[in-house]
Amino acid sequence: MYTARAYAAASPTAPLASATIPRRELAERDVQIEILFCGICHSDVHQVRNEWSSVMPTVYPIVPGHEIVGRVTKVGAAVTKLVPGDLAGVGCMVDSDRTCESCQEGLEQFCPNLTLTFNSPDKHLGGVTYGGYSERIVVDEHFVLRVPSNLELAGVAPLMCAGITTYSPMRHSGITKGKKVGVVGLGGLGHMGVKFARAFGAEVVVFTTSPGKRDDALRLGAHEVVLSRNADEMNKHTGSFDFILDTVSADHDINAYLNLLRRDGTLTIVGVPPKPLGVAAFALIARRRSISGSNIGGIAETQEMLDFCGKHDITADVEVIPIQKVNEAYGRLLKSNVKYRFSIDMASLERERA
Amino acid sequence: MYTARAYAAASPTAPLASATIPRRELAERDVQIEILFCGICHSDVHQVRNEWSSVMPTVYPIVPGHEIVGRVTKVGAAVTKLVPGDLAGVGCMVDSDRTCESCQEGLEQFCPNLTLTFNSPDKHLGGVTYGGYSERIVVDEHFVLRVPSNLELAGVAPLMCAGITTYSPMRHSGITKGKKVGVVGLGGLGHMGVKFARAFGAEVVVFTTSPGKRDDALRLGAHEVVLSRNADEMNKHTGSFDFILDTVSADHDINAYLNLLRRDGTLTIVGVPPKPLGVAAFALIARRRSISGSNIGGIAETQEMLDFCGKHDITADVEVIPIQKVNEAYGRLLKSNVKYRFSIDMASLERERA
Repeated sequence: MYTARAYAAASPTAPLASATIPRRELAERDVQIEILFCGICHSDVHQVRNEWSSVMPTVYPIVPGHEIVGRVTKVGAAVTKLVPGDLAGVGCMVDSDRTCESCQEGLEQFCPNLTLTFNSPDKHLGGVTYGGYSERIVVDEHFVLRVPSNLELAGVAPLMCAGITTYSPMRHSGITKGKKVGVVGLGGLGHMGVKFARAFGAEVVVFTTSPGKRDDALRLGAHEVVLSRNADEMNKHTGSFDFILDTVSADHDINAYLNLLRRDGTLTIVGVPPKPLGVAAFALIARRRSISGSNIGGIAETQEMLDFCGKHDITADVEVIPIQKVNEAYGRLLKSNVKYRFSIDMASLERERA
Repeated sequence: MYTARAYAAASPTAPLASATIPRRELAERDVQIEILFCGICHSDVHQVRNEWSSVMPTVYPIVPGHEIVGRVTKVGAAVTKLVPGDLAGVGCMVDSDRTCESCQEGLEQFCPNLTLTFNSPDKHLGGVTYGGYSERIVVDEHFVLRVPSNLELAGVAPLMCAGITTYSPMRHSGITKGKKVGVVGLGGLGHMGVKFARAFGAEVVVFTTSPGKRDDALRLGAHEVVLSRNADEMNKHTGSFDFILDTVSADHDINAYLNLLRRDGTLTIVGVPPKPLGVAAFALIARRRSISGSNIGGIAETQEMLDFCGKHDITADVEVIPIQKVNEAYGRLLKSNVKYRFSIDMASLERERA
């Protein structure tokens, strides 16, 4: 065991502050990564503030961060996937049981014995896992991703969660050229959804409540932008979408979007609004429509996504901040005041040296 | 044009009573059917009482009935599908545009220009179509089904709506041997769902609020019956179902059933509860689950269903009544006091002769 510098929160109301955390010595399949950038995901804020206490209570101190990109510094004796010097990514998961049906199918995210990157029981050191707001992390090679060398790294970090969360449901729904895809909400998730849908060859429509986002949506790849509060604009698209990706985690009228799906169309939610979605039965029955949920993606699919990003030169649009601005960034995130993801430059942790 | 005896309602509050309605002379692709039995569907009651006024306002007088079985008495010159003397069925649809994408794919039920069996604009005679509570009907051969000769006809009538409504979503979801299927609600739809799921080779679990239905559910083909108000019984099945058919049209907790689905499992609703379904986002996201709706089935699939019923000796469990008891039957239907469908013996219309 050795120690690493990190930023941690000591309670639901405490700001994140400099801390020292333990990291394990390398087992034979472990990879040690020097973290270069870590994205800030909404989940970080929820978990730090213990807002999911009923399903995933927070253990303090918490070190959040599951959008990790860095460079391999050391590998265990049996590691074959990476060598020191390689670029590497780590997302929401750092271990699973490898034996359940989901693991066997490469869908580790649904493993009942999943170890999340932070706030999950740590099988090696006891306590809980510590995430990416840190200078280093040690992860089993199976959960370490190879990162294409042609991409700007600050924008790669958010691919590890926001990227795969939007890539996976569109792949799962078979989005290809000729399909009409809607993306509801243009934030960290939504802006990645637009980029992927466009890269898949789909006709892309962004739904937003903010007229100010129109130009940016078009720049990101949308063919059209619909103001969701304008019923006439909405009605023009009735029954026309193959797929809608709903990234909104605030309460909203889901039926307004269901009605835009064509026969056998699917709306997939990746946000978690606080109240249950009020789904009108007729909206589903009328055209044999579906609503589904999606949860990040498996390791193999995450690698596929990163390779796809390398090929198509896709990264997240980020605002790079030093770790010292993380509390301020949380406040801005809650006001959607970021285009479109914060990426922490982890070199800034140097300043915390005593 | 000629006339036929029927039972019609003159207003939302009037009882159904004897009436005379017009039926068209045969066009070259028309089939004239002497109706032997007509099932009573919940939709009949809703439409007679104008309870769907916002989406499908009722035109009076209304002659309901879309679970029709009878014998062909006459065919137009170009008819190739049936000859006089054949058994024939008619379900919820009597015409469509034949040119839209849904029609081309054999999914006429989603045609935007569908003509329903009753209360739909009648292209031939003007006014609206009149349904199966009648001695005769004339229907284009495309919408007339062949009925296997080995089945008891009173129990065949409900196959035309309750049957296809439950058969189609299970076929669409690929229910076969080895799948675990839940059926929520044991009424006209649910009891057909149980029969089909069992015939497909699935493991069948019935969910009911009525302990008194346990024996009957087992007799109909269920392997297990769960009392949905018993949380312990419900929890035992968490994450285990491939497919759940939800036939309940009263408000109910949909998440209790969503949580029973395994990864990638689907819950399909065929009932229309008055209030929106309150769907918890986590229930969908956790295992990539879906909710979908389903609406009867296309003509080709309805024929497939009837052939399947012939092969597996499947009919609805019915209580046969004379047409003179139809108003009483409506009252009992609303109290779920029927096992499991009323089938009107249309020979009883004879008594109405002046």
